[in-house]
Amino acid sequence: MQFSSKLIENAVGEIAKLPGIGQKTALRLVMHLLKAPEEQSEQLSKAIVKMRQDIKFCQKCHHISDEEVCNICQSPRRDGAIICVVEESQDVMAVENTAQYFGHYHVLGGVISPIEGIGPSTLKISELIRRIEKAKEEDEPIKEVILALSPTMEGDTTAFYLTKKLRAFEDLKITTIARGIPVGGELEYTDEVTLGRSIQARVSFAD
Amino acid sequence: MQFSSKLIENAVGEIAKLPGIGQKTALRLVMHLLKAPEEQSEQLSKAIVKMRQDIKFCQKCHHISDEEVCNICQSPRRDGAIICVVEESQDVMAVENTAQYFGHYHVLGGVISPIEGIGPSTLKISELIRRIEKAKEEDEPIKEVILALSPTMEGDTTAFYLTKKLRAFEDLKITTIARGIPVGGELEYTDEVTLGRSIQARVSFAD
Repeated sequence: MQFSSKLIENAVGEIAKLPGIGQKTALRLVMHLLKAPEEQSEQLSKAIVKMRQDIKFCQKCHHISDEEVCNICQSPRRDGAIICVVEESQDVMAVENTAQYFGHYHVLGGVISPIEGIGPSTLKISELIRRIEKAKEEDEPIKEVILALSPTMEGDTTAFYLTKKLRAFEDLKITTIARGIPVGGELEYTDEVTLGRSIQARVSFAD
Repeated sequence: MQFSSKLIENAVGEIAKLPGIGQKTALRLVMHLLKAPEEQSEQLSKAIVKMRQDIKFCQKCHHISDEEVCNICQSPRRDGAIICVVEESQDVMAVENTAQYFGHYHVLGGVISPIEGIGPSTLKISELIRRIEKAKEEDEPIKEVILALSPTMEGDTTAFYLTKKLRAFEDLKITTIARGIPVGGELEYTDEVTLGRSIQARVSFAD
C-alpha cells in the first residue's frame, strides 16, 4: 500500500504489527485517530506505555498485577489451599468473570509445545512445585490443584506432564475442569469427541 | 469485564475506544504487547502521538501530508488541470494504488448527510470552487472534475450538489467514475440497480 505521508506509514506499520490487525484495519484506526481529538491519541499512547513499563507479575501466582503480590493472593476471603493452574493471565480473568471460583491461581505462562520450542522449563512449573512444597513446610498444605488448560494437544500434554509431577505429593487432589457440551450449545452440532466425553462424564440430574 | 490491574484496565479501555475493537480484542492486544519486547509498545505509542501531532493537511487539496503542500500537488509529472473529488484521504490512497490516475485531488472531508449534521458548509466545497476560480484567474484553467464519491444516498446527494455548483463554470467537464459490475464479480449475484446501470452505460468492446 502507498501512503502519502511517512507519519501515517509509520503509525500504520506499528499498529499492523499487532495480531489480527492488517494494513487496511490499521489505516482505518489511524484515520479515526486523526478525526478524533488529539487527547485521545495521547491518552491511548500513555496508557500503553505506562501499562508496559509499570506492570508487575505476582511473585506467588505469576498473574499480572499492579503490586508485588496480586489482589487474589492477598485477599483473606480466598481459599489458599486450592490452586487453579491456567495457561495465561487472560484465563484467570475468564475464570474470575464466572464468579464460581474462590481459590488461588497459578499462571504457567504457556503450554508445552515442542514445535514452538516451549518445554517444561520455560513454564512456571518448577515454581508451582516449589509453591506446593513451601505450603507444606509452612503447615498450610495445598489440598487441590485444578488443571484448567485448553483441551488442545498442547494443553493435554501439559496436563499429563503436570499430573505426573504432582502425583509425588501425597494427599493432593488433582482435578481438571469438566469437558462437555457448552451451555446453549446444540447437541446435534457438537463434535463426537466432546459429546462422547460428556456422555462418559455424565452427572446425576439433581446436580 | 473484571481486570486484576488498573494499568491493564486503562490500556484496554483506551484501545477499546477505537472503532471495531471491543474489550475482548483490546485485551488480546494488551496481552500481546505484554509478551512482546518493551520497545514495541514504545514505538507504537511514539508513532501514534507523532502522527497525530505532526500531521498536516495539504493547503491545496486537503489530503493528509507531511508538508504544507502534498507530494501529489507538488509533483511536476501530474496534470493539474484535472481534479478528482473524493470523500476522504483514504480514497486518495485507494485511487493512487490503482496507478491509473495522474491528475490532482480534492478531499471534501466527508459527504452531505443531514442526519449526521453534515451540510455543504462543513465540507471543503467552497474551497473547491475557489480553487477552480483561482486556476482560471492564473490562466491555468481546470478542464475536468471527476466525482469519485461512494454510490450511496449521501454520496449521490453530494455529487448532485457539486454538479449544480460546478455547472456555473463554462468549459469545465464534470464526470463521475463508472458504476458497473466489479472485475471478478458474478453477473448472477449482482444487484439489479448495478446491473441495470452497467447495461445502460455499456461500452464498445474494443475499449
